[in-house]
Amino acid sequence: MNENTIITLLTDFGRQDNYTAILKGVIFSINRHAKIIDISHELPPFNIRAGHYLLETSYKSFPAGTIHLAIVDPGVGTSRKSILIDAGDYCFIGPDNGLFSFLGRSKIKNIINLTKRKYFLSEISTTFHGRDIFAPVAAYLSTGVTPEQFGPSLSSITRPKKKKTGSMGEIIYIDYFGNLVTSFKEADLPEKYVVYLEGIKIGRPRRTFGSVKPGQPVCYINSFGYLEIAVNLASAAEIFDIDYSTPTKILIASP
Amino acid sequence: MNENTIITLLTDFGRQDNYTAILKGVIFSINRHAKIIDISHELPPFNIRAGHYLLETSYKSFPAGTIHLAIVDPGVGTSRKSILIDAGDYCFIGPDNGLFSFLGRSKIKNIINLTKRKYFLSEISTTFHGRDIFAPVAAYLSTGVTPEQFGPSLSSITRPKKKKTGSMGEIIYIDYFGNLVTSFKEADLPEKYVVYLEGIKIGRPRRTFGSVKPGQPVCYINSFGYLEIAVNLASAAEIFDIDYSTPTKILIASP
Amino acid sequence: MNENTIITLLTDFGRQDNYTAILKGVIFSINRHAKIIDISHELPPFNIRAGHYLLETSYKSFPAGTIHLAIVDPGVGTSRKSILIDAGDYCFIGPDNGLFSFLGRSKIKNIINLTKRKYFLSEISTTFHGRDIFAPVAAYLSTGVTPEQFGPSLSSITRPKKKKTGSMGEIIYIDYFGNLVTSFKEADLPEKYVVYLEGIKIGRPRRTFGSVKPGQPVCYINSFGYLEIAVNLASAAEIFDIDYSTPTKILIASP
Repeated sequence: MNENTIITLLTDFGRQDNYTAILKGVIFSINRHAKIIDISHELPPFNIRAGHYLLETSYKSFPAGTIHLAIVDPGVGTSRKSILIDAGDYCFIGPDNGLFSFLGRSKIKNIINLTKRKYFLSEISTTFHGRDIFAPVAAYLSTGVTPEQFGPSLSSITRPKKKKTGSMGEIIYIDYFGNLVTSFKEADLPEKYVVYLEGIKIGRPRRTFGSVKPGQPVCYINSFGYLEIAVNLASAAEIFDIDYSTPTKILIASP
Repeated sequence: MNENTIITLLTDFGRQDNYTAILKGVIFSINRHAKIIDISHELPPFNIRAGHYLLETSYKSFPAGTIHLAIVDPGVGTSRKSILIDAGDYCFIGPDNGLFSFLGRSKIKNIINLTKRKYFLSEISTTFHGRDIFAPVAAYLSTGVTPEQFGPSLSSITRPKKKKTGSMGEIIYIDYFGNLVTSFKEADLPEKYVVYLEGIKIGRPRRTFGSVKPGQPVCYINSFGYLEIAVNLASAAEIFDIDYSTPTKILIASP
Repeated sequence: MNENTIITLLTDFGRQDNYTAILKGVIFSINRHAKIIDISHELPPFNIRAGHYLLETSYKSFPAGTIHLAIVDPGVGTSRKSILIDAGDYCFIGPDNGLFSFLGRSKIKNIINLTKRKYFLSEISTTFHGRDIFAPVAAYLSTGVTPEQFGPSLSSITRPKKKKTGSMGEIIYIDYFGNLVTSFKEADLPEKYVVYLEGIKIGRPRRTFGSVKPGQPVCYINSFGYLEIAVNLASAAEIFDIDYSTPTKILIASP
């Protein structure tokens, strides 16, 4: 860690309020040389899976030494733990609720249960742990406090239970353009396949959304390695009437 | 003031246009080492009370020496004054329209009427004082120009007239989640009380929104010390059909 | 160029996803001292004319030496060129599709066709040239690589064909407040004139939108030198039912 360490922020706080600015003010009050970068603050509220996707697909684009602070925290004020994960090139700070489960066991060097109150703000509110706990811990870490100083080690992080879905998948993220990111990664897919969305045939994977005519549905491996469903020059979310509130079924079939 | 002074920005400009980037470009043209942090640019247009709330509840989260530039300016181009307030640890720059009235008289060391044109851009438009006056003044202040060099002192800032509302309050801010911030501060409230919103009983204050069942209304002191009304896991603004365009009555009653 | 060069970003990526953060991560991985400023990420998707307007009206507000990275790229993955324009005080990087055509021939010192793969990321996706080509080129340029090192020179940039519209113009940008920016610049207009929008008389130009009563339409030269049509304290886009999807006619007539 050095003084101008990069600290990224990923939250579901939105951009209208002053919550994210307060995180930044708290960080600069402890380390005014930090470089703070917003990943996103417009996650669907409380959607841990979407936060997981955005962090998984962007954290390695930052230089080694970057601290990733992620707060999607439906359990704030309950007994869920606050953690710091030392993953070698990167550290992760946030609630222990599955947000960081893209980190395989072999990548994790240490997991710290954040308990040392000397690294928190002096008063801890029940509703804003981002300001009171996570932001100051990220800032102190960036000034050279070692992970071990923030509390005792834990043996594992919370990981979501693997559902046995076979060849069925789900929509894990809907992007700004209405493209639908599925739970299938390229490595998990057979060599040849055809994709169905809610029983509608999308077809075999193409190179990009431009491979079909405007208005036609299409699927392809996106630039992060996930199978994605789109409609060329339109919003697939709108056309297929898909949002986060209802589960959607994706089927991979033989061609 | 030193060269890498933090300058915060709070406006109702929105984020779609290039207005806020232009403020930053102007500041960096004068002091390229400034650290610029956005508080919010998505204030409800022309809503001074909302800007007042966001600034009051965040300015102290920044390190001493921070300059807060706030532009919510329905009177741009009229005779309202442009001011700089020296409040010791923090300076504030913006239109004199009540935006800074959370600063008590004892906190204010000096008020400057911004009149020295040598610290403005060379051409002053009628509609964009943020670019032409406020941003360059903030930048010059951050380079070490003293408050007194920007113009003569004023004896007071504009403060909104205190309405005699007794036990009636109003909604001053609606956050991203639809939570309703009332005008009551914890210190102004009796030891025991019950809250009514538009005649509907919300109940006694709880510790947090999680203290009631999903879908139930609840009130509590928010992390900034204001009485706030929410609906657990839903938007109170939507459920009670409340927006900024219609006045809303909050009643504090004996339990 | 020096290490803490300012790099601005203008895209139609939106702010919800992690795309803009990834651009920043890539830049910091090459030059961690860069100062990155967002101009806007909320352009109407694929709207080159709107991007052109926002960049034209803001690029000079930044200090000399600033690198402007602009990505509005409906042709990503096709044969459109990726270019770097050296315009003396400023450099511009992005797709060659008309986005930079506000730069007159006399302002352009050199145009480079970005072909040298050693300055790209090692793998080039078909859909995310911002991450794979444009961001690393901007970062290397900021560290002192000269424009000529990125590829061979081109003789000209793509410029949109000038339509012979006579006294007819169009809406090129709709801002956050619903104000309508027309294609007319102050220098192109006669000394005295009256403006019509879709056959409705807006009237002669005024000093600012505050020159008419609330709810009345008004036109004026905006702070960037363009003729703009607004409705005082309301959204002209809403009241005249104007959006980007349907062409709108503006007529300049004798008074």
